[in-house]
Amino acid sequence: MPVKLITPLSSSLLPVNGIELGSAEAGLRQLNRKDVLVIKLIKGTHVSAVFTQNRFCAAPVTLCKAHLSETNNIRALLVNTGSANALTGSKGLDHAKQCCEGLGQLLAINSNQVLPFSTGVILEPLPVDKLIASLPTAINHLSQADWLNAAETMMTTDIVPKGTSRQLVLGDQSITITGISKGSGMIHPNMATMLGYIATDAVVSKHALDAIINYAVNQSFNCITVDGDTSTNDSFIMMATNLAGNQEITEADNDFIALRDAMTDVAIELAQAIVRDGEGATKFITITVEGGRTKAECRKVADAIAHSPLVKTAFFASDPNLGRILAAIGYADVEDLDVNVLQLYLGEVLVAENGGVAATYKEALGTAIMQESDILVRVALNRGKESVTIWTCDFSYDYVKINADYRS
Amino acid sequence: MPVKLITPLSSSLLPVNGIELGSAEAGLRQLNRKDVLVIKLIKGTHVSAVFTQNRFCAAPVTLCKAHLSETNNIRALLVNTGSANALTGSKGLDHAKQCCEGLGQLLAINSNQVLPFSTGVILEPLPVDKLIASLPTAINHLSQADWLNAAETMMTTDIVPKGTSRQLVLGDQSITITGISKGSGMIHPNMATMLGYIATDAVVSKHALDAIINYAVNQSFNCITVDGDTSTNDSFIMMATNLAGNQEITEADNDFIALRDAMTDVAIELAQAIVRDGEGATKFITITVEGGRTKAECRKVADAIAHSPLVKTAFFASDPNLGRILAAIGYADVEDLDVNVLQLYLGEVLVAENGGVAATYKEALGTAIMQESDILVRVALNRGKESVTIWTCDFSYDYVKINADYRS
Repeated sequence: MPVKLITPLSSSLLPVNGIELGSAEAGLRQLNRKDVLVIKLIKGTHVSAVFTQNRFCAAPVTLCKAHLSETNNIRALLVNTGSANALTGSKGLDHAKQCCEGLGQLLAINSNQVLPFSTGVILEPLPVDKLIASLPTAINHLSQADWLNAAETMMTTDIVPKGTSRQLVLGDQSITITGISKGSGMIHPNMATMLGYIATDAVVSKHALDAIINYAVNQSFNCITVDGDTSTNDSFIMMATNLAGNQEITEADNDFIALRDAMTDVAIELAQAIVRDGEGATKFITITVEGGRTKAECRKVADAIAHSPLVKTAFFASDPNLGRILAAIGYADVEDLDVNVLQLYLGEVLVAENGGVAATYKEALGTAIMQESDILVRVALNRGKESVTIWTCDFSYDYVKINADYRS
Repeated sequence: MPVKLITPLSSSLLPVNGIELGSAEAGLRQLNRKDVLVIKLIKGTHVSAVFTQNRFCAAPVTLCKAHLSETNNIRALLVNTGSANALTGSKGLDHAKQCCEGLGQLLAINSNQVLPFSTGVILEPLPVDKLIASLPTAINHLSQADWLNAAETMMTTDIVPKGTSRQLVLGDQSITITGISKGSGMIHPNMATMLGYIATDAVVSKHALDAIINYAVNQSFNCITVDGDTSTNDSFIMMATNLAGNQEITEADNDFIALRDAMTDVAIELAQAIVRDGEGATKFITITVEGGRTKAECRKVADAIAHSPLVKTAFFASDPNLGRILAAIGYADVEDLDVNVLQLYLGEVLVAENGGVAATYKEALGTAIMQESDILVRVALNRGKESVTIWTCDFSYDYVKINADYRS
């Protein structure tokens, strides 16, 4: 049961000039389910990318990196669910190459102009013949209007398709940004089992687009965690088709900030949607740690809270067992942390200070906040000026059920 | 449902000359339940201790450290369940002092000759009056024979009381070692919500006993993890009453190794018992990582596997979803890890090598091993000579249930 997350209206996901999307049912793992997505890019589209830091990166990730290093002229993205083609050795790499060759032939482009993405079960071979056989159907369905369908095609354990759009004016030109994402488990910064694609028709230099994706990922997908597991396949792609007619944006332009922030805003919404649709999630939890000496130490405290199964099960139970949060702060490995000067807030309620429960705290106040579906945990370390915000969800029976049953 | 763990026979927990134990029902949290334990030590007993590294260490831990720094003449241990007296600020420290004063008066010793230990709910005040009122009853029950009763008294979410004994001959003298422990959640190295007490009648120097506890804790309690949460109250105590009549053992003696290893063996059994009784545990999992360049990198890999909710839920499901283990190895942050040279074994079965599934692997082999209640995961990094072994359990519905309901 996703937390305050509903399927976007198809009409709310705006077409991006120069981007076409089409899907097909290849039967890679289940029948009667869309599982292959082709995204076709107009010539001249800039593509920037960030990938998983897992040492076992999957075959398609390896191939994406190779293709991006070989050409600046990416013309298509190929996404499949059902099989992640991860931990599949050299055979897996061959499979990913065959898929790119198959799509390249159909679109009359080189195979290294295709970026492949896979998500699903790991360790099992990609049913490459079925995938390639489905490509003509996907291509026949290519359309600029089909972003919602694309988001649906990427879903695995997701309950809700995730997508959003923004429009802004740069110079005299209206610019469109549309993004979609998938992922709900194995979600952890750097990165998650997540795929994220954000496209814009803005005219922007490749260098500026690289800067935007690096900024945006650190504000968005690298700030979410469901279970602390970093997947083998995570990929986040930004595409700029350069068709909007605005003057090219470089990092020196005033419009750069406007475009960067709008793209980042889309990335944050897509990232938060993954947490709201986290496996078994019943609560969406924002954790802000402020007053730290460094961002790194703020992040340590936020991660300790976000990863604690005891904290996450207490949220699931709507139990203001705030001692578990304090205990997590205490083991977050922050040097010289003086626990007597920090403060813990739940929503706006001061819960703890002076090393224990705040004198003004009443359990009824905590209980009321724990009933909410969106909860803010705020820690004031009171020893510096840095702050960090991350997002996570609670830990429920359904998380166990989903992950104990996933392969069956 | 503890994994291959049964209540020890009372007769199998051997008395240790110079140690008496007695318990009482103070009604600290629940009625009709033993919740206060007094352990009385004969004069001349050496006491060594290791405590939690959580910055929010509980009031009794703070007081234990103070007392151990003030005197070498500890004469009593006082343990309570129901309330952890943690995150209770200066009032909590006063409460712990009052308890030590109360027991000191009854035993005619100074309050700083008492070490206090608390376990249970955090953030709530210790019912100090009830605790002190129960002490005469506990003292009336003091007996050398009551180790099982003592182990039962310490239980919180534990299902099975944990204790074991060893005997060995040093010189011409028979030596006895008996230990008890409690803990089943918030279990993580450095350390867990665990209390461990190991006593021996051996004559051993204080310096040698310190060396033994530091060796033993790194082989035992620091090698277990249930949920990655480090508690505020963890305490591990070794006591030597020096009554066995052997020649005093120092670190230079041959008998030192024999005593150290026997004490460590008890510590390992007690630590493993905590994992076997882990909250909701249905599987006991040994993770060995070998062939590393350093123990630290082996430990990173072992911890990544042991802490992954995806791995732990797969074990619960008896699902050989071994890709999840490989993914955890991949994100364990080991520098320059070449995933193509490492091997993964489940029991004796080679599961993965060359970056993917082993050619000889059949899923039926993995499935058979996953049905077992004791499972060995072995990773050969093949890049060095160091190795590490840790123990953990799976992640079940019951873990969530226990921790979502614990306070209700």
